Order: sequence, then C-alpha cells, then structure tokens
Amino acid sequence: MRLAALLSATAIAFALPAVAVSAQEVDRVAINRIIDQGFNHSEVMDTAAYLTDRIGGRMTNSPQMRQAEAWTAQRFRDWGLSNVRADPFEFGRGWSVVRSSARMTAPRTLDLRAIPIAWTPGTNGVVSGEVVVAPMTTAADFAKWRGKLSGKVVLVTRPTAGSEPTEAPFRRLTEEDLRDLDTYNMPNHAAPSTNPLRELEFARQMDAFLQEEGAVAWVRMSARDGGLLHGNGSGYRMDDQRRTPGMELAAEDYRRLARLALTEDAKPTLELMSEVRFHEEDVNAYNILADIPGTDRSGEYVMAGAHLDSWAASDGAVDNAAGSAVVMEAARILKAMGVRPKRTIRFALWSGEEQGLWGSLAYVDKYVATRAALGDAQLDALPNNRTWRQRWPIQPRDGYGDLVAYFNLDNGSGKIRGINAEGNVAAAPIFQEWLEPFHAMGATTVSMRTSGSTDHVYMQTVGVPGFQFIQDPLDYGARLHHTSIDSYDHMRAEDLRQAAVIMAAFLLQAANSDEPLPRMPTPTQPRPTDPFPY
Amino acid sequence: MRLAALLSATAIAFALPAVAVSAQEVDRVAINRIIDQGFNHSEVMDTAAYLTDRIGGRMTNSPQMRQAEAWTAQRFRDWGLSNVRADPFEFGRGWSVVRSSARMTAPRTLDLRAIPIAWTPGTNGVVSGEVVVAPMTTAADFAKWRGKLSGKVVLVTRPTAGSEPTEAPFRRLTEEDLRDLDTYNMPNHAAPSTNPLRELEFARQMDAFLQEEGAVAWVRMSARDGGLLHGNGSGYRMDDQRRTPGMELAAEDYRRLARLALTEDAKPTLELMSEVRFHEEDVNAYNILADIPGTDRSGEYVMAGAHLDSWAASDGAVDNAAGSAVVMEAARILKAMGVRPKRTIRFALWSGEEQGLWGSLAYVDKYVATRAALGDAQLDALPNNRTWRQRWPIQPRDGYGDLVAYFNLDNGSGKIRGINAEGNVAAAPIFQEWLEPFHAMGATTVSMRTSGSTDHVYMQTVGVPGFQFIQDPLDYGARLHHTSIDSYDHMRAEDLRQAAVIMAAFLLQAANSDEPLPRMPTPTQPRPTDPFPY
Repeated sequence: MRLAALLSATAIAFALPAVAVSAQEVDRVAINRIIDQGFNHSEVMDTAAYLTDRIGGRMTNSPQMRQAEAWTAQRFRDWGLSNVRADPFEFGRGWSVVRSSARMTAPRTLDLRAIPIAWTPGTNGVVSGEVVVAPMTTAADFAKWRGKLSGKVVLVTRPTAGSEPTEAPFRRLTEEDLRDLDTYNMPNHAAPSTNPLRELEFARQMDAFLQEEGAVAWVRMSARDGGLLHGNGSGYRMDDQRRTPGMELAAEDYRRLARLALTEDAKPTLELMSEVRFHEEDVNAYNILADIPGTDRSGEYVMAGAHLDSWAASDGAVDNAAGSAVVMEAARILKAMGVRPKRTIRFALWSGEEQGLWGSLAYVDKYVATRAALGDAQLDALPNNRTWRQRWPIQPRDGYGDLVAYFNLDNGSGKIRGINAEGNVAAAPIFQEWLEPFHAMGATTVSMRTSGSTDHVYMQTVGVPGFQFIQDPLDYGARLHHTSIDSYDHMRAEDLRQAAVIMAAFLLQAANSDEPLPRMPTPTQPRPTDPFPY
Repeated sequence: MRLAALLSATAIAFALPAVAVSAQEVDRVAINRIIDQGFNHSEVMDTAAYLTDRIGGRMTNSPQMRQAEAWTAQRFRDWGLSNVRADPFEFGRGWSVVRSSARMTAPRTLDLRAIPIAWTPGTNGVVSGEVVVAPMTTAADFAKWRGKLSGKVVLVTRPTAGSEPTEAPFRRLTEEDLRDLDTYNMPNHAAPSTNPLRELEFARQMDAFLQEEGAVAWVRMSARDGGLLHGNGSGYRMDDQRRTPGMELAAEDYRRLARLALTEDAKPTLELMSEVRFHEEDVNAYNILADIPGTDRSGEYVMAGAHLDSWAASDGAVDNAAGSAVVMEAARILKAMGVRPKRTIRFALWSGEEQGLWGSLAYVDKYVATRAALGDAQLDALPNNRTWRQRWPIQPRDGYGDLVAYFNLDNGSGKIRGINAEGNVAAAPIFQEWLEPFHAMGATTVSMRTSGSTDHVYMQTVGVPGFQFIQDPLDYGARLHHTSIDSYDHMRAEDLRQAAVIMAAFLLQAANSDEPLPRMPTPTQPRPTDPFPY
C-alpha cells in the first residue's frame, strides 16, 4: 500500500528546499562539536570491542550479560553521566554454554559444526545414538513417530535444498532503495487474533514428546547455509523448562546425515556433547539507564536505546553491540561537550530484547503506560508481552507525557541513512530539518513507514513517539543476524562513528527544541476492520 | 591482449551459420541416445553422493582416497568397461584427520572453528599455550620472533580486515561473460625463472624454526571469511616432513585472538587438539583408468579426465567429485548405449591433483612424452613437476601420437557453457560444430583462451591436444573451492547431467571422426622473449 505521495510530508520536504520549518532550531555550532568528538575522538569501536571480543555473546541473564551490565554502567559513570542504574524486571533463568561438540561416528567419522540450542539442558557427557529424521512442526506430527525414537538422536527439521545466493551479501541502500522505503503503513492497534496461551506451546510439547519417547537428543538444521549456526531457543521462564538436549547443526552437516539416513547400508550415528549452565540465582534481568539531566524542571526527557543482550552463537556484534556502542558513544560525546540540555537525555541499554522486547516493554509498563487486565486469571498470569496488545484501555502512568521522543538503533552496523517517522506526519518535516546537516554523510531520508521487531515498538503501542533509524543493511540480513560469525570483524568503524554523531545530534535537537516533538493521539481500541473476522 | 578478432576461427563460426565444416560428422542420432541415457537414466548424482556423503574428503593416499579408488574402479567394472586398472606413481605418504578441536581458554572460554593443516603432525592430546601473533612470510621474518615463541601457540598470519562481499556468490555466465572469455593468450613454453629448489622451502623452514624455538603449535588464519576453513598444506613426501602441529582457524576466530593479544589485560590462551594419522604403507598414488576399446587397431585413443582426490575440509564435492562423477557418467552412458567407437575411449580419475597435478603428469610422463634430464644431480632428484618445464627437449614416448584428444572437467558443478580451444585454431571450428546440438542447453562458446591449474596442463606442455570445458562458475570460487562447505548440497544435479551428456558426445565425436583432432606442433625450447632477463 503506497499512499506515500498523498500522505507523506516527507515527500514534499524531499522534493523542495526545506523551507516549511524554520531553520534556527538546528544548532549547527553544536553539531560541529559533535562531529569533532564523534570523528576525531571516537571511542565507539573501543566500546564495541569490549562488548564483543572481551565479553562476547550476551544472553539475557547469562554471566556474560551480567558482566556487560556492570561494565556498561561503569562506563556511563566514568563518562560522568547521572543516575546510572540497573533497572530490574522479571525475566527467568540465564543459560550459558561451556563447551559442545558433535561428531558423526558412522558410516564414517567426521567432526560436525554444532551448537547447543538455547535453554536446552546439556547432555551430561557424551551421548550417542542412531539418527532418525522425524520432521515435526505441529503436535499432529507426533503420531507418526511414536514408538520410533527411543535411544535415538532425532533430526526434527525437514531438510531443504542447498542455497544459491544470487544476491550480493553486503550492500548499501541506493537512492532508489531509499525512495522505496517511504511507504505509509496503516496504523494497526488491533489485537492479534492468535491465542496467547498457544504461543511457544509447540516447543514445550515437542520437548515433552521427546522425553516420553526416550529420545537421546534432538537436532535441528541451521536456517542458513554455509556452515553458519544460530542456536536461538526458548525455555527461560522458571515455569517453562526443557528436558531434552537440543543442538543445531550446520545445514550441510544436517543434510548429509539426512541423506545417509535414507540409505540401507550406511545409517548414520551421532555423538553429541553439550555442557551448559543454568543461572537461577537472580531471575531479574536489568536495563541499564543513565541520564544527562535537563536544566528545566518540566520532567520531560528524550531517550536513546539499543539492546545489550544477544544470542550466543558468536559475540553479538552487529546485533547489537553496534547499536549499544552507538548509544553509549552518543552519551560520551554529549557529556564530553558538557552539554546542559533543556530536557533530560536518557540512555537505555535494554535486556531481554531477543526473547520478545522484554526490557523496553518493562520500561514502558513501569514508567510510561500500562494496560488494563483482561480479567481472565489464566491470561492475566501470562508474561506481559503475550497479552499486551489485547488489553484495553491504555492506562497512562504519571510520566506518560514526559517521554518526548525515543530513538532506537538495532539494524546492524550500517551507517544511518535516515529515520522512519513511523506514520507521524507532524514529526516528519522536523526530522527532515534535523537531518539536513548530515545529507553529505549519506543520511537524507525520512520515511513514513512503520518499522518493527525492536525496542521502539512498545513505545508506539502506547502513543509515545518512538523511532527507529534507517541504516545501510550491509551483510546483516544475509549472513550476520544471530549467526556464528556475528563478531567484531563485521562491524564497520566509519559507519558506527557516523551513527553516533547523528544519534547525538538528534538527541540534542529533541532535548532543546522549543516544543516537544509532536505525538500521535493516544491509541484507543480500534473499530474492527472486518465485520466477519473468520 | 585481445587478438581474438584476428586469430580466432571461433569468432567467425560464432557470427555466421556453421557452414565452414561439413555437418555430416555430427551423429545426431547417437546424441539423441546420449541425451536419453544422460537425462532419463542418469546416475551422475548417485555417483556424486557416494563419493561425497559416503566416502567424504579424499586426500591423496588417505584411507578415504583408497576407498574411492577401489569403489570407482568397481563401478567402471560393473558398467562393463575394459582394462580397468589402478595405475601407480610415486607420491608420498597419506594423511587423515581423526578429530580435532580448538578452544580459547582466556580471557574467556569459547569453542573455536578449526581444522588441522594437512600433513602436519597431531598434538598428541590437548596442548595449550599463550597466543603470540608472529606474522611470517619469509625466513627473514624469523629474527624478529627468535626467543619469543617457546611454549607458545604461534599465529603466523598477518590479520587482515573483514570482508565486504559485494558480489553475488552464485552466478552463471552471461552472454557478455562468454564473449569476454574468448581471449587469445600467447603460447608460453618458456621455463619459469623460479628456482625449483626454493619451492615450498618456506613451509619447511618455518616448521624447523618453530621446532627450534619450542613452539607448541602454529595457527594460520583462513583465507576466507564467514567461518569457512580449508586446511590445505604440504609435507607429504617422505623426505619433506613437518614436525610442528598446525591448525587453521576461522578468520573471525583468528582475528579475535589477534585483537585480544594486543590488549594488556586480556591476553588469550588456546587449547588445541588434533588427532591425525599418517599412512606410509604404500607411498604410491593411483590413477584409475578404464577403457571402451576402439574397433580399429591404430592404437589411437581419446580421453576424459577429472581428479578424484580432494582436500579434507569437507567432502570434496564441487572440487572434484562433480567432475569425477561426470567422467564416470559419460563412461556409463556410452557403455550403456553399447557404442563401438573407432578409436578407444579412455576415462581417467587422477590422484595427487591438489598437490600439483601429480597424477596427470605421471600419466603423460609414462605414456605420452618425457623430457630430458637437466644433468644436475640435485635438480634431477626433485619431483618431476618441479623441473618439468625447464627440461628440454621433449622426448616422445611410443604412444605420443596415439592420444588424439583429452577433455578435462574441474571447475565445479556448473553446467558446460563451451570449451577452451587452448589456442588451437584448427580445433576451434570443429568444436563449434560439435557444440551446435547443445546450444539450447546453454553450451555455445568456443574460446581461444588457454586455461590452467588442472590436469590438461601437462598434456598441453608436450603438444597433446588437452582441453578444459567452460563451466558456469556458480559459487565455486566465492565459497566452495577447497572449503569446509564443499559438500553434496552445493552440487547442482541438472548441471552435472548436462555436463555428462556433452562430455559423452564430445568423446564419441572425437573417437569416431575421420581425422584425429588437429594438434599443435610439438613444443621446442622457445627463443628467449626478452634479451635482458633480469
């Protein structure tokens, strides 16, 4: 649905000189100082290196994430930020990998590429078994395999053909790409039609089925070719735990096993070893928050955020040490400049993002707005994010009006090419003006579209202006996102410096502007869009 | 140098209908039968699956290669080929991996992606040591590191930046690509100016240096990003053996170690384990040869070949189970058709290709032509391929004139798009005619260019018409060649079927044509091309 030409103020601002909005609001002297700090005195890659090389993958509530929480808080303090704090929310248990291995032992011996699936238990030493390929995607599949899995290593993915990567993995947005991004999405505050009790049910059901059947372990195929691994999984809540060890195999290794399993005389056997730890001493996760206090006493604040947690397949570099380092660098830049903004500037490093935006939702729920209970004991006992969109009305907290703007960064290490106005047509021309000094750095575009899947989403659900920057994709989607090669090597230093400069500038603009950024009316339960919802 | 327009008969045949050569030579009824066998009754992927999934990586003289030699010979026999034989040549010892692992133990623990470097000894259990980054590329580098490597794990590659893969890994040749291939290369029979005594000397020198210094092991960085590994190495000759264990690390893992080694307070340590076997019970390698006997008694024969050996990082699929399976399938097709060719058709599966085209050179030297000794005891004691091009004159064997044409396939699993005429302007229009029935299958191009790096090269050095087909590159160069993902998944069945059909047709044409394929004059020592060769 492309209503951009009709609805987007951006399209007009893009085509004409930006004269609609007065120019005196952009403080170009301050931007020169931001540029000096951000390019001549950058620390963004030092921050990124510590988070990735030194600490490594930062699964929520793992020891590595605890280390990252402490280290980032200390950096904020070192740089002189105020009110640095670790803000708790209930999450569940942590999980970390000590070591693992996988090995084919028949029809020939071969070391395989594998990692444990998150939150599955370890194997308690080396276990082995014949391979059975038993694809399962719903509980209806169990009947087919009942009685056949005892003592077996169960390959649960239906193998697909190898890939033919006919597009360049690494790319930057062209002018045409940027134009295509400027798409208007109809607002959608309607409750999802899925039953929140069913979510994640299959993972639990399959685990129980495999336990009953006496399977040794289950193995899934990597969703990407080329030997890449991911390892993401569920089962972190204290009331939702797995009992069967699970491992992810490289697609090439998985398919070889699946083909051999079809032979008569070369059935494969696997040896698996997975040593993992569960961390239950503190089931709270923590968002790290830090402020540059505002000079006026209105209580208004602007905010930048990125998630600090990651998956464990590698060092969580472009997802999202990159964004975390940029948010921290923006804080460092502004603090080093000695800014005294009108509104408070707050920096947030979220936890629990990878499991469903837990940290940013917890912040919204606690400080911005909550939503009514459903009045169903079973549903209301579910985690907040399972039922959030189904609960009406929105109930603003005292601080509801104080959060003037939130800027998120979570699309890899590509430089900023613009910002998604998230359907806010009143904010768009202001962003266009704020971006103008950065056109020569490649940041030109205000898109009307709504972006999703990260920590500004819950701001949007309650009507707070939360925005996500547009970044060059680089090889984020093609090979880095959640994979075993998401390490420091694939972050681009010049891109992250540019992003930190623009992030700092946007925060300063938003903190000092005469009027707070325009916001959308607070959502109310929308009329059904379809009279026959079946 | 593009002399194609002047010199290539191909260019003319390409632009005009192929009327210059009489058409009755192409037996289209036979080609219909080849097509039926090769597409409706194909076994090429069964053959490829056995070589890759069942046998796996086939390092020369490893147990896997022995298994492949026996299995392929048996397949030829099963299909009814004649004179199936394993033709020996001296090579050296075999080597195979039992298992291996690598693990960072400080500043944090992390399983790394690593494989042993070919023909280096195992670690004899788990060894560990602090990491020292000591880039070495010539013996002149040793002085810098002397006295600093005792008890250390030595990282010998200078780390480079991460890659930005801005081209599609998987591609097929366009019409423009095919036109660009039609380039004429001046013949070059001049002796190389390198000193054959120096070749591979550095690997030996570094091994000795590391031994003297008491290094625990050496580690090199993968030449490709993305977690891919290779593991190729030297040291297979009985008089040229390594004593220091060597491992290759994924580039991402290597660079992380190299960065940490630069820190003051987070120096990395590594645990390495490499269990390997040497196989010295038979230092001969074996080419597998099989014939379809010719009906006339001239002794003339035509030949197809591909190398059966591979590296060990994966299953040696596109390099070169693919080519081997195509050569075998061409044999099967022709035999299944019950052809009784005029000239004998010979099929060759070479060994020792990856270490320097040993197998095909041994064949040439034994049956086609040898070259004079240099008269220097030290040089003449070197392996044949080190001095081959420097020894004049060429001394034809009795069978020199009998080998009428040799066709090689060793550029992955891409379908055949044409053939390199290797500078033979008299053969080019004949190939154009032979290709004509396959234009609709994408095989259209006769290029004048000379191709290298595989088993037709030594045929060319003595003036025998040896040719390499042009194939679609697919993702051969981008991510498969010698890597840890060169397994069955990345072979393309339809491409290999097409290649087998064309290979069979070319063999039948060459075997039955009235006149043998035109050949170049036998090379003689060329005049120096430069009067001042320094």
